[in-house]
Amino acid sequence: MAYVRKIINDPVYGFITIDHPLIFEIISHPYYQRLRRIHQMAFASLVYPGAVHTRLHHSLGAYHLMGLALTELRNKGVEITKDEEIGAKIAILLHDIGHGPFSHALERKLIKGVHHEDISVLILQLLNEQLNGQLQTAIEIFSGTYPKQFLHQLVSGQLDVDRMDYLTRDSFFTGVSEGVIGYDRILKMLVVHDGELMIEEKAIYSVEKFLVARRLMYWQVYLHKTVVAAEKMLVRIIERANELIAAGIEMEMASKNLDFFLKQHQPEDNFIKHLEKFTQLDDSDVMCTIKNWCGHVDKVLSRLCKGLVERKLLKIRFQPEPFDPLLVATLKADVAQRLNISEEEASYFVFTGEAVNTMYNPYDEHIKVLFKEGGVTDISRVDNALIHQQLSSAVKKYYLCYLR
Amino acid sequence: MAYVRKIINDPVYGFITIDHPLIFEIISHPYYQRLRRIHQMAFASLVYPGAVHTRLHHSLGAYHLMGLALTELRNKGVEITKDEEIGAKIAILLHDIGHGPFSHALERKLIKGVHHEDISVLILQLLNEQLNGQLQTAIEIFSGTYPKQFLHQLVSGQLDVDRMDYLTRDSFFTGVSEGVIGYDRILKMLVVHDGELMIEEKAIYSVEKFLVARRLMYWQVYLHKTVVAAEKMLVRIIERANELIAAGIEMEMASKNLDFFLKQHQPEDNFIKHLEKFTQLDDSDVMCTIKNWCGHVDKVLSRLCKGLVERKLLKIRFQPEPFDPLLVATLKADVAQRLNISEEEASYFVFTGEAVNTMYNPYDEHIKVLFKEGGVTDISRVDNALIHQQLSSAVKKYYLCYLR
Amino acid sequence: MAYVRKIINDPVYGFITIDHPLIFEIISHPYYQRLRRIHQMAFASLVYPGAVHTRLHHSLGAYHLMGLALTELRNKGVEITKDEEIGAKIAILLHDIGHGPFSHALERKLIKGVHHEDISVLILQLLNEQLNGQLQTAIEIFSGTYPKQFLHQLVSGQLDVDRMDYLTRDSFFTGVSEGVIGYDRILKMLVVHDGELMIEEKAIYSVEKFLVARRLMYWQVYLHKTVVAAEKMLVRIIERANELIAAGIEMEMASKNLDFFLKQHQPEDNFIKHLEKFTQLDDSDVMCTIKNWCGHVDKVLSRLCKGLVERKLLKIRFQPEPFDPLLVATLKADVAQRLNISEEEASYFVFTGEAVNTMYNPYDEHIKVLFKEGGVTDISRVDNALIHQQLSSAVKKYYLCYLR
Amino acid sequence: MAYVRKIINDPVYGFITIDHPLIFEIISHPYYQRLRRIHQMAFASLVYPGAVHTRLHHSLGAYHLMGLALTELRNKGVEITKDEEIGAKIAILLHDIGHGPFSHALERKLIKGVHHEDISVLILQLLNEQLNGQLQTAIEIFSGTYPKQFLHQLVSGQLDVDRMDYLTRDSFFTGVSEGVIGYDRILKMLVVHDGELMIEEKAIYSVEKFLVARRLMYWQVYLHKTVVAAEKMLVRIIERANELIAAGIEMEMASKNLDFFLKQHQPEDNFIKHLEKFTQLDDSDVMCTIKNWCGHVDKVLSRLCKGLVERKLLKIRFQPEPFDPLLVATLKADVAQRLNISEEEASYFVFTGEAVNTMYNPYDEHIKVLFKEGGVTDISRVDNALIHQQLSSAVKKYYLCYLR
Repeated sequence: MAYVRKIINDPVYGFITIDHPLIFEIISHPYYQRLRRIHQMAFASLVYPGAVHTRLHHSLGAYHLMGLALTELRNKGVEITKDEEIGAKIAILLHDIGHGPFSHALERKLIKGVHHEDISVLILQLLNEQLNGQLQTAIEIFSGTYPKQFLHQLVSGQLDVDRMDYLTRDSFFTGVSEGVIGYDRILKMLVVHDGELMIEEKAIYSVEKFLVARRLMYWQVYLHKTVVAAEKMLVRIIERANELIAAGIEMEMASKNLDFFLKQHQPEDNFIKHLEKFTQLDDSDVMCTIKNWCGHVDKVLSRLCKGLVERKLLKIRFQPEPFDPLLVATLKADVAQRLNISEEEASYFVFTGEAVNTMYNPYDEHIKVLFKEGGVTDISRVDNALIHQQLSSAVKKYYLCYLR
Repeated sequence: MAYVRKIINDPVYGFITIDHPLIFEIISHPYYQRLRRIHQMAFASLVYPGAVHTRLHHSLGAYHLMGLALTELRNKGVEITKDEEIGAKIAILLHDIGHGPFSHALERKLIKGVHHEDISVLILQLLNEQLNGQLQTAIEIFSGTYPKQFLHQLVSGQLDVDRMDYLTRDSFFTGVSEGVIGYDRILKMLVVHDGELMIEEKAIYSVEKFLVARRLMYWQVYLHKTVVAAEKMLVRIIERANELIAAGIEMEMASKNLDFFLKQHQPEDNFIKHLEKFTQLDDSDVMCTIKNWCGHVDKVLSRLCKGLVERKLLKIRFQPEPFDPLLVATLKADVAQRLNISEEEASYFVFTGEAVNTMYNPYDEHIKVLFKEGGVTDISRVDNALIHQQLSSAVKKYYLCYLR
Repeated sequence: MAYVRKIINDPVYGFITIDHPLIFEIISHPYYQRLRRIHQMAFASLVYPGAVHTRLHHSLGAYHLMGLALTELRNKGVEITKDEEIGAKIAILLHDIGHGPFSHALERKLIKGVHHEDISVLILQLLNEQLNGQLQTAIEIFSGTYPKQFLHQLVSGQLDVDRMDYLTRDSFFTGVSEGVIGYDRILKMLVVHDGELMIEEKAIYSVEKFLVARRLMYWQVYLHKTVVAAEKMLVRIIERANELIAAGIEMEMASKNLDFFLKQHQPEDNFIKHLEKFTQLDDSDVMCTIKNWCGHVDKVLSRLCKGLVERKLLKIRFQPEPFDPLLVATLKADVAQRLNISEEEASYFVFTGEAVNTMYNPYDEHIKVLFKEGGVTDISRVDNALIHQQLSSAVKKYYLCYLR
Repeated sequence: MAYVRKIINDPVYGFITIDHPLIFEIISHPYYQRLRRIHQMAFASLVYPGAVHTRLHHSLGAYHLMGLALTELRNKGVEITKDEEIGAKIAILLHDIGHGPFSHALERKLIKGVHHEDISVLILQLLNEQLNGQLQTAIEIFSGTYPKQFLHQLVSGQLDVDRMDYLTRDSFFTGVSEGVIGYDRILKMLVVHDGELMIEEKAIYSVEKFLVARRLMYWQVYLHKTVVAAEKMLVRIIERANELIAAGIEMEMASKNLDFFLKQHQPEDNFIKHLEKFTQLDDSDVMCTIKNWCGHVDKVLSRLCKGLVERKLLKIRFQPEPFDPLLVATLKADVAQRLNISEEEASYFVFTGEAVNTMYNPYDEHIKVLFKEGGVTDISRVDNALIHQQLSSAVKKYYLCYLR
């Protein structure tokens, strides 16, 4: 194959360069191209109309940052072979390959009983076979079994390029400028010490800023009331559909593949058998199906679908403590009466749950700071740390969704 | 209804403000919300992965610019009543309401025999009925029958806010920084003279820049080879589907609405009857259907669909003169043999056409410059005009699509 | 006077509009024009080469934000008369008018015994006389005596447009993207309650982000080691010059005005008499004079001056506790020997001091949050506040400057 | 010397990296540091307040682009040795080292009879001596005598990184967004063919855009009426000062160095003798001196100086044909009478001249396009060229300055 270097315009970073045939082959593969049709932020665009970017775009961006990170580390004397470079780049390119449509919202709902990271591993293995084992290093880096641990940490860790890209990209496309992180500065401050990824002392403020930006993005965007309401409606829709299917009611899916996963696929199935079908699912199957269901005879289903399609969403309230069950019951009774449905059915329109956001968890994740003098300290323990004990514990909010 | 001012984050302009109940009502209407599911740039995202913004986002942006333009003109002493302001804002909000899925590509193909602007008018009228005649001024401004002509020119003219937004927004989301126009400067230089929209003398260079940016966006983005190839494949797919339908072959559509327009709707129909169905169509119907057809028994259809879905596109070449018919015939014969199909069928994979881009047409469109001393001159006739005779005539390129 | 609306290009906000004759007159006044020749960030450009913007540019920016803030408040029903609007705009335009050259560094050194805010008041009064009392409201707002307290808080308070502009502008021109604050979002969330400026509940995260960005800008930019070293050298230069002048040594100043302030002006003088001379001083007097002194016979003076001009700065170290006096003494002795000067003179090259940064001081400054339900809470006391007790107390670092 | 890689924040490009000791040494040299005190755009900041960036910042930016350009060319297989890389980087870093204060305005006025490029060569040679011949390659590349011609063309040519940086940087700091060029895209499209720098075919629209942006920047910024008026006033001030000096009138300069060049330096001098003095001159000498002259007894001098300092500029008009001598004479007579000065003196306040801007000159400069098929064509001769014959000839405007 006559190989040509490829340059891709990216409004976030300017240009992204593809300069290796294997990378090019992976990007051209239908499995990867499918990510074009899966939105990175699901229904966030109902609040932030610009947030319609795709998982393909995000993973290209993370790939770009991986290249910058590896170049920086090499400039600092860290040994990274060409094979490791390509491996790390492929690992990050494919880190989200197992996401299904509306992934975070529908995780384990649409594809019952399988986690997207497990699907990613399956697809990586399948691709590895197709490409004659060229993905071996990528798979090891992705899974964390590769000896140089810092490569895995760049793919998945507190300061991985996945987070750096999605925070940068999501704040860019939503227009929430406060979510901007100084990704380029953090990248320039990465070091490897004792085989682990750390940051230089002078990046402390940048990393604090990064964590604060993440916190802000969670409450202002990812867990925005309206976004949560829409995602919960989607979950309720699939749950209702499953119920109706179980009851033998006729359901018109937009595609055979979605039909299969809703009607036939079982959690106990060996998922490998269905991988081919899975790699053909995307947001359009779900969205078009929901549009079909707007006219369904089941009042619960059609009302939820119509609400989501027309952006007539359930109301939602957040509060620090659980909601009074009496209030919930009253609201349910009211809806049951208004819509002339059972109270059980009313629970599709009135329900509660929890939204959790941890700013920084010093127990199971770490950002280590390498001091000039040589010491290593966790970022939550440096002098005048912004990320103090209290903040680093999870913040939980309770929500109540209801039909007004 | 307790009215609340609404602020929408926009990565392009920062914030867009909705501060009038009627505007709010229109934006909340399902007809308008449908535009969330129609991409502004169809398949341009196959080349520019960021270009996945929607017609809803574009029309909100144009609405924002309309507000700025009206404020500027008022500051300069132009009388604009509150009713006219709201009318002009609604007219621009809804200027694209008649677009169907993949609009420019499928214009007159999917919805046979009806132009999107005519559909826009029908929807405007329907909305007007639903909203008790509150859209009367908007409709007159949209149609050009409102006495103050400059309001129509802001909606549709050489310097309308539609173009200003789409050039700005498309260059933003594609990341093609050369497409940037100084929309804010041009807006500040707008004037009304003899009832017509013009620009002040000192905006000449900005407007020239605007026209050059448009020219660049056309060749680099809108008529980018790969984008054209994908759009032509889509057209071919619909044409083949129509052929198969006419031949009575079974076709699996993703939705009943799309099924209706492909199978039953006729150009001679009174389109008003089908308006409700039309307002439920969007890109997902088409995309999901094309995915369904990837497994169709018809080799031509399935191959084209699979190619589009997996981004294995037809090759395309541009040249200034028509392609040699012999070359085309040879390519067709070759494809027919390779795919074991008829030469007629091969013409779905090998075909030619024209792409045209006019930089500025001094005959049927005008940008008038108002000089300080009071004279009015067309921009193509000012001293040292960049936009000279030759350029202002249409530039035509011929393309040849073929299967490699 | 034929008045013309004036539009000024600003890379930060796009355009700044001057649309009132009085504002125009003030901006055209030589007192205001002098701010063109005073850098906003003194020697920060030695580290951040883009940071050469001027106090004129900053005050124009703050004026722009004032306009936005007032418009927002009016839209929310806060009554602000035209006179108050112009008054608040003038107050912010002139809030820094009393700054002398290299202001923060040379405060009370160059202009002995007078604080820049007092000079601002004197100049405001002088201008008020020249403009027939048209600045009366502006002066009251500036001084905090105007009844509507929120107007003063917009000029000078925790959320004033001064800070919003300088953080935005300084992060823009330095290129420290982490300093970006969402000024536009905060402006849209301002409210007036009980006559005081507050923020809406949903701006909590934005304001936290603003405070964190400020903390970062302090440590990364304003108190950057190299910047502090340069500013301390400048202070030492002026101190040495005063010493030499007192000793009757001949000194070549670049201008008569600077000559006057260094040689004749006394703290006990009535400053009003010298206002005219003061309004002719700017950075060029100081910089050109320092260049002249590079060849001065006094070794201490010339060495410091040459070091500053050629960017051969003193070394500087920061630490959380005071420096060991023995270390300081040893360094001094070493310098005295190397340069063949007295130990007293060596203290111009070896000295210590403190840099202090308070993130948020809940005792003498407040950011009040107005909750939807009506309650008012300080930002440091909301649920899960980022700005906790410890952080809100001052953070002090000690520095040691020395000649290597 | 323990060498440390240095990263410089740049608001335009993000970060600029210094990673070679020789580059570091040159940047640290006082000759280079002087460029901090020379504004890139002289008096443009009187119109565009953000345009206060320095020649140091511009040359750092051009150095950064040079690095990108060389990397691109190497990736395309062009051989560039490490020595050539460093040479080209030094050549561009120092390309403006010979600029005096307010360079373009005062060229040959302040430093009589010597062109800034000749001074650059002298300083390069002096530095080369100081640095033991390490600048040999840089000097050859700068002068165009180095065999690989494309390296010189990157320093000085139609598509050199000097222009790319100054257009990008000047449009950034002025806030004139229409001046934005896609420098990154053009850099990626550079090729070397037959030893010469060219662009790939697909960069044609980007380069056209670059030329149009340049044209716009000329008329809207560099030759903006107010900017020209200020620069002409500065020239008149120096001319008047020379006249007064020749007449033996006492003049108070801010510095001895400026005093020398105004009073003693002669065009026929061997300039090398004065190089040391020259390298100490900067904008502050001139600005502080002009401030001193505001109180000069000579009415012509003091009035011009005060006008420039207080931004009370001469009026200026542009027109395509020369101004009527009768009009000029009338204006002069009027000024002579009003100010009670001679008509000869009045010519300091009333004068005419020409401003010229060539968009693209196909005779003595070339942008060559390398076509895929291998041919080479000048950009003015490609199909549908925007840069046609008429535009490529110089555009001349006449100006008239006068005191209102």
